[in-house]
Amino acid sequence: MNNTSSQIHSTPLPTREGQGGGSSRVSTYLFTVEPFHVDFTGHLFLGVLGNHLLNAAGRHSHDRGWGIDQLNERHYTWVLSRLSIELTEMPAQYEHVEVETWVESVMKLFTERNFLVRNADDGRIYGYARSIWAMIDVETRQPSDLLALKGGDILNYIIPADEKPCPIDKFNARVRMSDAATAVDIPTHYSDVDINGHINSIKYIEHILDIFPREQFEQHRIRRFDIGYKVESYLGDTLHIKSEKLKTRDGEVMDNEDIVEIRKHVGSAEKPNGEVVVHAKVVWE
Amino acid sequence: MNNTSSQIHSTPLPTREGQGGGSSRVSTYLFTVEPFHVDFTGHLFLGVLGNHLLNAAGRHSHDRGWGIDQLNERHYTWVLSRLSIELTEMPAQYEHVEVETWVESVMKLFTERNFLVRNADDGRIYGYARSIWAMIDVETRQPSDLLALKGGDILNYIIPADEKPCPIDKFNARVRMSDAATAVDIPTHYSDVDINGHINSIKYIEHILDIFPREQFEQHRIRRFDIGYKVESYLGDTLHIKSEKLKTRDGEVMDNEDIVEIRKHVGSAEKPNGEVVVHAKVVWE
Repeated sequence: MNNTSSQIHSTPLPTREGQGGGSSRVSTYLFTVEPFHVDFTGHLFLGVLGNHLLNAAGRHSHDRGWGIDQLNERHYTWVLSRLSIELTEMPAQYEHVEVETWVESVMKLFTERNFLVRNADDGRIYGYARSIWAMIDVETRQPSDLLALKGGDILNYIIPADEKPCPIDKFNARVRMSDAATAVDIPTHYSDVDINGHINSIKYIEHILDIFPREQFEQHRIRRFDIGYKVESYLGDTLHIKSEKLKTRDGEVMDNEDIVEIRKHVGSAEKPNGEVVVHAKVVWE
Repeated sequence: MNNTSSQIHSTPLPTREGQGGGSSRVSTYLFTVEPFHVDFTGHLFLGVLGNHLLNAAGRHSHDRGWGIDQLNERHYTWVLSRLSIELTEMPAQYEHVEVETWVESVMKLFTERNFLVRNADDGRIYGYARSIWAMIDVETRQPSDLLALKGGDILNYIIPADEKPCPIDKFNARVRMSDAATAVDIPTHYSDVDINGHINSIKYIEHILDIFPREQFEQHRIRRFDIGYKVESYLGDTLHIKSEKLKTRDGEVMDNEDIVEIRKHVGSAEKPNGEVVVHAKVVWE
């Protein structure tokens, strides 16, 4: 899927509270970092944070009549295309966390939704996230024209970037793997799939992080994670996960950046020729 | 661990509301079944339900001064020894669920904690759960005398079975595997371990259910799940998961009951001789 050709609609609207806030277009979602949701360093698993972001997105949409449950009746569903999370700090066990979410722009076939992640007690900001979504027709699996649905109602919820900035870079994981990448095959099981029978968006994040050894997490924190979803995979598919250190155009190896590609594993282990399911980049600090 | 020799203390106490309720000793914990927490049938993953039960237990303990965060300062921590969940129905996506939890009994080295799982809107009961916990000294790893801690304060929270029944059988997964059991090796990774570096209690449930094919979940629902935790396993351990259909003493094969044993995989694949980490039983409907 390609979003470069669509015109961006980001009509500013008056906010209920006057300048800056735009709270009628922002939803805030609160959660506590539970004991079984932290890793061995005592910090929230990135996948669990991702789940909270997606839940916040779901509620924000629902509260404005664009929820997946409301859209299903109309034979549409939201599909996550890209997710980028960038954090200066990962929430720790028992901390109370607030997720703010809002829509930055709407194009014909895509919408950009942003997130702010903040400590609910002292207000310090852990970081931000960006996501890109498409609306598909569940029968044809084709993307729908967001601007044509519900008489363009979605335009009412946009908060343009100059009004509410999301100060992290846009998605940035379009990197070609070399033949030297290491690979691992991961079978998929019951726990991997969602209600649609697809491998759950969050489970890909877990599988990607699970390719790294304990020492990586002992010595480094994830500063940024980008993941792009290309095609669906299904229960029983074997995921062929390739990864390597990012190389700059000059051939310099970036020790703190790993690029990852997941393909459906058809063909032999030596020559997997399945479609790219997911591509991702992890930046460590 | 063995709890048969300790005397059960279950002194009835007056309840705040008079008969039956005992609400000062019961905590109620509310959650919504989130879209990413349901399986392909649209029902809550058993592991996610288990996580909610453990969170309810944690809050109930915390609110009475027995939380893991409060106990850590005293160098003690709760360890889950057994968990049994029995359901007539599994909550479905978007349903609102209430978990009630209370302590049924306290022995010297163990306490029994029960759960009721109910629809928060219409009150219908999905099912019940039972659990057994020990308190260990985090330095010696030895179980502590629950009755000696905090001057026997824990006895104040008991609701005996005749006052608040939990109408499901006690833990029932002490079954010997035959040599004919099928086996699979599961490596463990970053996402499997908790803050103590141990494989997370809930992840064992996921790994166990993942040995079953899609058809099992299409054709059957989990009516009851028993799991007993014997020793800890750690990040990097390979789990050797054996399973087979339960056989009665007469040799009859119970098609709807699977017994499962997880060992740490040391030795060869043919002759694994690691310790038993977990044993479990799944009853299907």
